[in-house]
Amino acid sequence: MASNRGPVSFSRDDTGQLSVKRGGGGVVSGLSSVASHQDLLWVCAALSDADRAAVRTAPGGMLGLDGTPGGSAVRMLDIPGATFNRAYNRVANSVLWFVHHMLYDTPNQPQFGLAFRRDWEAYREYNMAFATALAAANDGSPGVRAVIQDYHLTLAPRMLAELSPGIKIAHFSHTPWAPVDYFRLLPDGIAAQVLDGILGADHAGFLCQRWADAFVDCCERVLGADVDRDRRQVSYRGHVTGIGVHPLGVDAAELTGRAAQQDVEARMAALAEVIGGRKLIVRVDRTELSKNIVRGLAAYRELLLNHPEWLGKVMLLALAYPSRHDLPEYREYAASVQRLAGAIADEFGTAEWTPIVLSSHDDYARSLAGYRLADVLLVNPIRDGMNLVAKEGPIVSDRGCALVLSREAGAADELGSDALLVNPFDISGTVAALHKALTMPDEERKLRSQSLAAAGSAVPPSAWLASQLAALDGAP
Amino acid sequence: MASNRGPVSFSRDDTGQLSVKRGGGGVVSGLSSVASHQDLLWVCAALSDADRAAVRTAPGGMLGLDGTPGGSAVRMLDIPGATFNRAYNRVANSVLWFVHHMLYDTPNQPQFGLAFRRDWEAYREYNMAFATALAAANDGSPGVRAVIQDYHLTLAPRMLAELSPGIKIAHFSHTPWAPVDYFRLLPDGIAAQVLDGILGADHAGFLCQRWADAFVDCCERVLGADVDRDRRQVSYRGHVTGIGVHPLGVDAAELTGRAAQQDVEARMAALAEVIGGRKLIVRVDRTELSKNIVRGLAAYRELLLNHPEWLGKVMLLALAYPSRHDLPEYREYAASVQRLAGAIADEFGTAEWTPIVLSSHDDYARSLAGYRLADVLLVNPIRDGMNLVAKEGPIVSDRGCALVLSREAGAADELGSDALLVNPFDISGTVAALHKALTMPDEERKLRSQSLAAAGSAVPPSAWLASQLAALDGAP
Repeated sequence: MASNRGPVSFSRDDTGQLSVKRGGGGVVSGLSSVASHQDLLWVCAALSDADRAAVRTAPGGMLGLDGTPGGSAVRMLDIPGATFNRAYNRVANSVLWFVHHMLYDTPNQPQFGLAFRRDWEAYREYNMAFATALAAANDGSPGVRAVIQDYHLTLAPRMLAELSPGIKIAHFSHTPWAPVDYFRLLPDGIAAQVLDGILGADHAGFLCQRWADAFVDCCERVLGADVDRDRRQVSYRGHVTGIGVHPLGVDAAELTGRAAQQDVEARMAALAEVIGGRKLIVRVDRTELSKNIVRGLAAYRELLLNHPEWLGKVMLLALAYPSRHDLPEYREYAASVQRLAGAIADEFGTAEWTPIVLSSHDDYARSLAGYRLADVLLVNPIRDGMNLVAKEGPIVSDRGCALVLSREAGAADELGSDALLVNPFDISGTVAALHKALTMPDEERKLRSQSLAAAGSAVPPSAWLASQLAALDGAP
Repeated sequence: MASNRGPVSFSRDDTGQLSVKRGGGGVVSGLSSVASHQDLLWVCAALSDADRAAVRTAPGGMLGLDGTPGGSAVRMLDIPGATFNRAYNRVANSVLWFVHHMLYDTPNQPQFGLAFRRDWEAYREYNMAFATALAAANDGSPGVRAVIQDYHLTLAPRMLAELSPGIKIAHFSHTPWAPVDYFRLLPDGIAAQVLDGILGADHAGFLCQRWADAFVDCCERVLGADVDRDRRQVSYRGHVTGIGVHPLGVDAAELTGRAAQQDVEARMAALAEVIGGRKLIVRVDRTELSKNIVRGLAAYRELLLNHPEWLGKVMLLALAYPSRHDLPEYREYAASVQRLAGAIADEFGTAEWTPIVLSSHDDYARSLAGYRLADVLLVNPIRDGMNLVAKEGPIVSDRGCALVLSREAGAADELGSDALLVNPFDISGTVAALHKALTMPDEERKLRSQSLAAAGSAVPPSAWLASQLAALDGAP
């Protein structure tokens, strides 16, 4: 297994001592549950100076799944900080992420000049470090498989195939895939490298059919690859890559167990006092440009303006955790979220009623408390590979929440029949869906919520990974 | 004929007197050359208070082609200023233009709330005013045809078809057409109205195959219309619309005649002194977000940095005329252009050498002088329906200029084999093309320029309109 972020990370405490913690993030939580049950080596990058310091004391960069030096489960790559920063922040997060989520302010950004070419070389080095580590772990025995994750590692499949012929390779994209006209913002040679890199794999997986189709369109129109849509195959440079759709869901037993713990109950009690019996709309996101928090707040404001019957009777709990604060667009976006939430509180708040509670303090137990208390869960990304919040909420909701869901989230494929789907750019359409969700008869809401919970837990991470491996074993 | 801008407009001089001038803009120059030769009524909108004042003194809003009150060639619609502003600035120019050119800063814009719904009603009223005027002009005789222009008037074809059954209707889009994933930013009902509006026509025309294909994709995926790509037809609501590609080019005789006049020669003489025998790169654009002037300047800067052999030996003449200064994005963009041009002049300029001349003073004679003197013409829009600058430059160039052209301009279809095509987001790729253009052997450059001139003048406006009318007569 290869992914940028591994199952453990390190930090320094006040005394300068290194301490270990289990990693976070969607991919990691998806993979951690299966990692210990497999004969698996997990290759990841050192993400910080503390990680790099920790890994330098571990022989060969090898760690246990709990971070113990000298284990055999994790190999953390000591990539130089400058290279990592260019590959991770400048290429992966500022370019590939922006392309697939269509986030650019196109008249001004991107500008692919000399600095980007230098950054791209770092991205190649970073991918080569992974490919080299994976190749070194291949002992040549039959059946060795490499499963490579996400947009950080688009070049590694081709590099590994060349270093280690015969190893079976899967690549999986956790993001959306851009439509051709947007993908072609990338410089031509670099667009071709990204596609060719993934096509080095025997199997390329996506979270829903739409992203798989967009990838195949790009292979056809940018590379001129030979595409067989019926057989779900792309042929290029004499190699055939199978294309698969593998939705990722939630381990319901684990999640409901966690949501029943005491810290969650304590936060529910505190929240219940603020809510005071009102209807509760909840959203939980990283403060990510794609998550569309600003338009969500604008819709809540228009709901209060246009449906004054809700004044004093509803509350929005917006949990917006920090994300990518090293990128200026993200700091500005977080400030916009703060400003708009403050404006709504000023405009509508009274001595008795707090219309909105915004918190950017990362607290997983409170997220779970929010899920449990929600009458309505609002998930309105402008574009999202899957979105696990939409799946988690209905699973743990005590009352059976209604789900207002962007049709541009991959999860809409599985949840669309019981969620209220919205166009995320359409504020008034979102208002209409929120109002419908708030006024939905109890019986209907509970039935829909049950169906949502069933759909959201249909493919837990273990089944998701198994389906990729089965597809890889059957790959052309 | 119906178009937002007509063949004449009015302004007030210092004494408050109304004076008339011939209209500008791509569509108008395309249509003016044929208008006087046809049994044609041209319906357009009053664009300003002066237009509205002028048209109120003309019986029935009727004018001659030269603006004389009481003529029979032009009907200028007296649409209330507030309605016009909402329809033209807020819907057409701030939404439909942005969608088709993919110009949004998507994390923040657009936001389709209540204000947009009000603006959309104004756009409907504006379209209905045109449809009503066209229907009134239909005397019921056989063979009456209506040719409706562009993104301002997407609803008018359907409205006219309902008001005046039996009239043959063509619609023509002078913009690109957005890919489905981007078109669907529009609120669902409004996206459907736009498509349904154009499908009210018997024939829908586009400037190149790519935009026609994108429109057909939208009809299929957004409306669920029945699409026959081989026969180039879309069936919807029991009506069949033919889809056509009608490139628009330049009337070479008229343009070269104009470019030989004394005012052009005088500006050439003045420019030649500044140029001083150096190589000259020329660009001519409105200061439009889609025209990509900032990245063009960034490419020129990287050329000087990366190819120091050009220091003192090359000059960039950037003619960037004012556009849409009532929209804040455009004012900010114009300021960015000024800043970057100033920074380049500061960084590289010497007592003997002015590396860049930027002018935002609208002067057609100077544009023609720039064309005639250019060694290299740079046309790098991020997305453009056609781009007539790319066609005009080679036709009048004295030396046979090289053309660096964005592959995202519709003109790339016709000019691609002799232009140097670039990805407009790729600064370094643009630098490489500029360097190649500057160093191209004379003979090759002249041969390519001749081919470009031939391709650019292959379909003058009269032939463009004739091809639309022929397609309309043969429409299903």
